[in-house]
Amino acid sequence: MSTQERITPRKLKGFRDYLPQQASLRKRIQDRIYQKAQQAGFLPIDTPVLEYAETLLGTGGTDTDKEVYRFEDHGDRMVALRFDLTVPFARFVAENYSELVFPFKKVQIGNSWRGEKPQKGRYREFCQADLDIIGVDSLAADVEVLSCIMSNLVELVPGSFTMAIGHRIILSALIKACLPQLALGGENRTLIALDKLAKIGEPAVKELILQIEGAEASGADRLLKILQGRDSAGQTDLNPVKELLAGTPALQEIKRLEETAGLLQQLYQNTKAKVRIDLTIARGLGYYTGVVFETTIDGLDGFGSISSGGRYNGLVSRFSSQELAGVGGSIGVDRLLAALEQLGLADDKARRGIFIALAGEEGRSYGFQLLAELRAAGAMADIALKEGKLGNQFKFADKRQYQIVLTIGGDEVASKSVSIKDLASGQERKSVPWAEAFAELSKLS
Amino acid sequence: MSTQERITPRKLKGFRDYLPQQASLRKRIQDRIYQKAQQAGFLPIDTPVLEYAETLLGTGGTDTDKEVYRFEDHGDRMVALRFDLTVPFARFVAENYSELVFPFKKVQIGNSWRGEKPQKGRYREFCQADLDIIGVDSLAADVEVLSCIMSNLVELVPGSFTMAIGHRIILSALIKACLPQLALGGENRTLIALDKLAKIGEPAVKELILQIEGAEASGADRLLKILQGRDSAGQTDLNPVKELLAGTPALQEIKRLEETAGLLQQLYQNTKAKVRIDLTIARGLGYYTGVVFETTIDGLDGFGSISSGGRYNGLVSRFSSQELAGVGGSIGVDRLLAALEQLGLADDKARRGIFIALAGEEGRSYGFQLLAELRAAGAMADIALKEGKLGNQFKFADKRQYQIVLTIGGDEVASKSVSIKDLASGQERKSVPWAEAFAELSKLS
Repeated sequence: MSTQERITPRKLKGFRDYLPQQASLRKRIQDRIYQKAQQAGFLPIDTPVLEYAETLLGTGGTDTDKEVYRFEDHGDRMVALRFDLTVPFARFVAENYSELVFPFKKVQIGNSWRGEKPQKGRYREFCQADLDIIGVDSLAADVEVLSCIMSNLVELVPGSFTMAIGHRIILSALIKACLPQLALGGENRTLIALDKLAKIGEPAVKELILQIEGAEASGADRLLKILQGRDSAGQTDLNPVKELLAGTPALQEIKRLEETAGLLQQLYQNTKAKVRIDLTIARGLGYYTGVVFETTIDGLDGFGSISSGGRYNGLVSRFSSQELAGVGGSIGVDRLLAALEQLGLADDKARRGIFIALAGEEGRSYGFQLLAELRAAGAMADIALKEGKLGNQFKFADKRQYQIVLTIGGDEVASKSVSIKDLASGQERKSVPWAEAFAELSKLS
Repeated sequence: MSTQERITPRKLKGFRDYLPQQASLRKRIQDRIYQKAQQAGFLPIDTPVLEYAETLLGTGGTDTDKEVYRFEDHGDRMVALRFDLTVPFARFVAENYSELVFPFKKVQIGNSWRGEKPQKGRYREFCQADLDIIGVDSLAADVEVLSCIMSNLVELVPGSFTMAIGHRIILSALIKACLPQLALGGENRTLIALDKLAKIGEPAVKELILQIEGAEASGADRLLKILQGRDSAGQTDLNPVKELLAGTPALQEIKRLEETAGLLQQLYQNTKAKVRIDLTIARGLGYYTGVVFETTIDGLDGFGSISSGGRYNGLVSRFSSQELAGVGGSIGVDRLLAALEQLGLADDKARRGIFIALAGEEGRSYGFQLLAELRAAGAMADIALKEGKLGNQFKFADKRQYQIVLTIGGDEVASKSVSIKDLASGQERKSVPWAEAFAELSKLS
């Protein structure tokens, strides 16, 4: 390699390395979600990271399409990196239909990619944990997905958080009622404008709406007023909504939304989780068709949502003649990790494990034998990889936060013993017979 | 979505979906490797899937370069999907040098991509688990990496397997000694030819070697004879190798290789793992500089290696003025999974978990309450997502391999009880008080 030119080591903008502390915490978050999901009957699946571009494009809306990483592969196929786990999942369901038992509950944890502007806690490569239920359109399915996500967040989020629940059908009906003259496609543009309400504020959203053909100022005002009305519990005041939509099919969706939120409030009433109906929740992605939700950590405003999702009843039929209703949600694993880092909760300073220091080369074979015994007993154990000054080996063990150092020299090999030092207490014992030491050390984990 | 054209659901060639049984087994393999690695003091890290193309290209040899997925991103950067975990790791070490404690032991489990011809057990997207030690060039580090991989395989591989260990420096010295007239680059081409020995046989390899400028038939014969000589234990006979290389620096590498293999043989003598010195192991990748190894499942010839790796002392200096020795190995998680599938060992037919069936809508709220209690107690529990015929709910529970079905109707809600049916035994009990049922069910896992 020495003849090669040196290459500056650098990551792509918007991408990150995970150092051991972060990678370890990230894995614990992923595993906990996976374990709880399995316990709740969600089955794991996995799909390729690359898909035909046509599979992914045109599902998430034009903004998302622009951010998709796509290219021509070795076989001249237009391919793309997935931008979420939901669209590939719809393809998966259509393609593996006969192998699945419906309603099909799935958990999938993996990375997706979007070439969007990097921001605090937002990367171009990000890990999400998705829970979905395909093949049933019911209140119970909505509750099950949202409840399983809540129960994960109750464990994982430090402090309290709020899940805000809206509904696409109700929101669409409101838009139609308030802005009946909108041109074709205007409803979607209004949804996208409303989605920015929390971020850019009412006047800017109103301006966006008024740019849409057929939008009237009085209707926009009425819409924004209804959406932002609050009842005594801080939820969207549904009374004016019911009045406006009386006699339309949207009315039964209001009932379903109230029941969904009510059941969740009851299940999580004694936790740090809050549930709130908020009809301003629109969600940018194009494929939602029913309940939608977003979850934010209280007191971390501007950090964005750590979990979101909703019902998408038309997505599978993009790939199949089967009409399969779907509902799902993502937990933003990397968002959650970034939040924990920002709150200073990502460090682990505990000492644990055993390090075997070698006074000389003659201890190596004996050392590896003890190492194997400790590991087989379930203890965390490591060994010096280069003999040399014992002082340096102790320094290394200290930096790596090991709890115990065993020292092996010629004497220990001859007498089948070890010297033991506890780095936490500083306590030291010489020439402890191995059987005695093993009985004690194999209990550490 | 109904106005959209339907898109045929299809995966890219060489890519696969993981159905629940496979995904679940794959995750168990990954988690077991991760857990054992952490226990052995390997620290988890993660790096982006996408890197600057220049970071990856030119490291794995020209064959590998051709297979790399590369493209221009939104910011006109030439980027590439990683083709292994080792090269990005070298970039990671150079870029995060000051944050790491050396020798740095790392575990990383993740996918890589190569646009190669799909074969049995080989996909264009594949998961590997890598163990590496950076910052020390020692026999102990070689043994530690190889030993930790062996101890994983002892658990994960059904039946016996063989780790064949070679050495790049010894092999290069042998090539130089037998074919002293090779032109520039000829040594590498000879290595690549030798790497194919097991696959295409001696005559074909000899032919490949003789196409290289400066290669003589007698030298090629001698090289192939020495490499294929076996001692009584079935290992490469090292006596003619030592004779030929007497007085060269390669001699001390032979001693190190013998010690490495001897120590591993001693540590794994009572297991189904075999360790064998085999100097024909060359490894295709360009970056190896010392010990190299490949592991195959006995009796599954033609399936390829399930674990491989070696020492790469020059790789970090591609990115850094620091000279950092490295040694590492990969366990092919997806290869292992394919082997288990081929051997019919990937199915899990056990019944487990509890399913709550609802006789009517009035049981829903009560059902969700019981569900939450069971899950909080650690039981695996699921609930009907649509009321309807009880018979259909039981059929669903049976297909999903649940063990217990709890039925809730109006009577059970009123009396705070459940009806319990064990799908394995067929045994059924009506109106069991919830407290009694809970005490019993929460012990299931």
